[in-house]
Amino acid sequence: MTAHAQRLPSGSVDLASIPTDRTRGFSGAKKEGKQALVDLGPELSELQERLYAHGRKGSARRILLVLQGMDTSGKGGTLRHTVGLVDPQGVRIMSFKAPTEEERAHDFLWRIRRALPGPGIVGVFDRSHYEDVLVPRVHGLVDETELERRYAAINDFERELTEGGTTILKCLLHISPDEQKKRLLARLAQPSKHWKYNPHDVDERARWADYRRAYEIAVERTNTDVAPWYLLPSDSKWYRNLAIGELLLETLRGFDLDWPAADFDVDAERARLTGETPVA
Amino acid sequence: MTAHAQRLPSGSVDLASIPTDRTRGFSGAKKEGKQALVDLGPELSELQERLYAHGRKGSARRILLVLQGMDTSGKGGTLRHTVGLVDPQGVRIMSFKAPTEEERAHDFLWRIRRALPGPGIVGVFDRSHYEDVLVPRVHGLVDETELERRYAAINDFERELTEGGTTILKCLLHISPDEQKKRLLARLAQPSKHWKYNPHDVDERARWADYRRAYEIAVERTNTDVAPWYLLPSDSKWYRNLAIGELLLETLRGFDLDWPAADFDVDAERARLTGETPVA
Repeated sequence: MTAHAQRLPSGSVDLASIPTDRTRGFSGAKKEGKQALVDLGPELSELQERLYAHGRKGSARRILLVLQGMDTSGKGGTLRHTVGLVDPQGVRIMSFKAPTEEERAHDFLWRIRRALPGPGIVGVFDRSHYEDVLVPRVHGLVDETELERRYAAINDFERELTEGGTTILKCLLHISPDEQKKRLLARLAQPSKHWKYNPHDVDERARWADYRRAYEIAVERTNTDVAPWYLLPSDSKWYRNLAIGELLLETLRGFDLDWPAADFDVDAERARLTGETPVA
Repeated sequence: MTAHAQRLPSGSVDLASIPTDRTRGFSGAKKEGKQALVDLGPELSELQERLYAHGRKGSARRILLVLQGMDTSGKGGTLRHTVGLVDPQGVRIMSFKAPTEEERAHDFLWRIRRALPGPGIVGVFDRSHYEDVLVPRVHGLVDETELERRYAAINDFERELTEGGTTILKCLLHISPDEQKKRLLARLAQPSKHWKYNPHDVDERARWADYRRAYEIAVERTNTDVAPWYLLPSDSKWYRNLAIGELLLETLRGFDLDWPAADFDVDAERARLTGETPVA
């Protein structure tokens, strides 16, 4: 029994028809789901360390986990609960806000390239280059020609990354508008969550159908074999966290990495240390 | 009963006279020490989130935790076990290796400035600008005048950072040469740790006394009120982790931060959400 991120099939996507509240592949309740995530920790952590070790020894392999979803869909919660299971040394989290003036002066992929994970690292994007085909489409900031140029640029870019050793996992955190409303109201109800509340999010919420359509088109154009899109039903936070944990774990297992072999003579080094002139 | 990082007094420092194996302030054994660290987690995590929240709301406050120590002194273990207690979103870890050619073409603080934490972030340096007054002194790569220029530059730099809202905690992870030998041999004994073993570390180990003296001088020159040095007896890994956790916690407590107040009208926002035209 494992939670499964759903690999979206290529072709047209109808997000409204995909349930947001399923706990696909996992028959347990919240309590078991939370425990199942914690139980992934040790293996996830060890395999991530192997990836890191190989990165230090010259392997180009790395992971890029892209988190996209409407406000409150749980990008932050995924970072805390799932990504937080592994050694922070091996993780690089980058959050993308609205582009700065400097960033806007460059191509949209410029700031993305500067934020890519190094060898052996699990890079996580909290929002990403996909914002540049979502917000501009919804708000009509660029024309269709430019949007199509961007989808193509994203596909070229992602292909280049995978050829360079990056495994890309693109996750769409799928919530319903009702669930978002509940979460926004919950933020208002707790002073400890007021800092997360932004009235602008409610303006964007009114464009829900436009965002959904923008997501559908973005997924249709960029759901490639080298950089696939996964859908995570995210009304249940614990299920979302578990499913992303499973996806990471499956990816790491697929690398089938042993520890890197010693690139020195182990016995000779032992002899050097045990036979040394006293130090201090 | 809490573990205490020792604030090094200003003036001359004699590291050889300071025990590496004490568990100062904490009378429990390893098991209790490990549990005590885990028990810090919830408060540490909440206070870190408050710091982060204020960073998002315009506060310039942030923390820079500098970890320095001989090889195997446990910079990585501290990152995993202590820094790993808080939300990875609020942490930025930077590891400094030997400078690259590009880095060497700039002043030694150039790469450091690019790695500083943003507002609300707990930045952690695994090695730091202090490497540039340790290695060069031990290996005679620069002359005394240049070393003195660097100490002064560090003090100016650190003062500038604190004036900009950064609280700097400089930690010297203090181990004995015997403990290092044990740890190096342990790395050799386990294939899963071979990747961490570097024969060069044994060459550097032979210069232990030179490094100790280089540390003493560095601490003497840069142990300022605004950017103090703390000494962590680090032969016990659990004690080191706990003491750094306590230091972080005390620092965060000292900020006395409540959650940021809402910068919007809570009731009006609730009314907007509950009275909205159906979305989707």
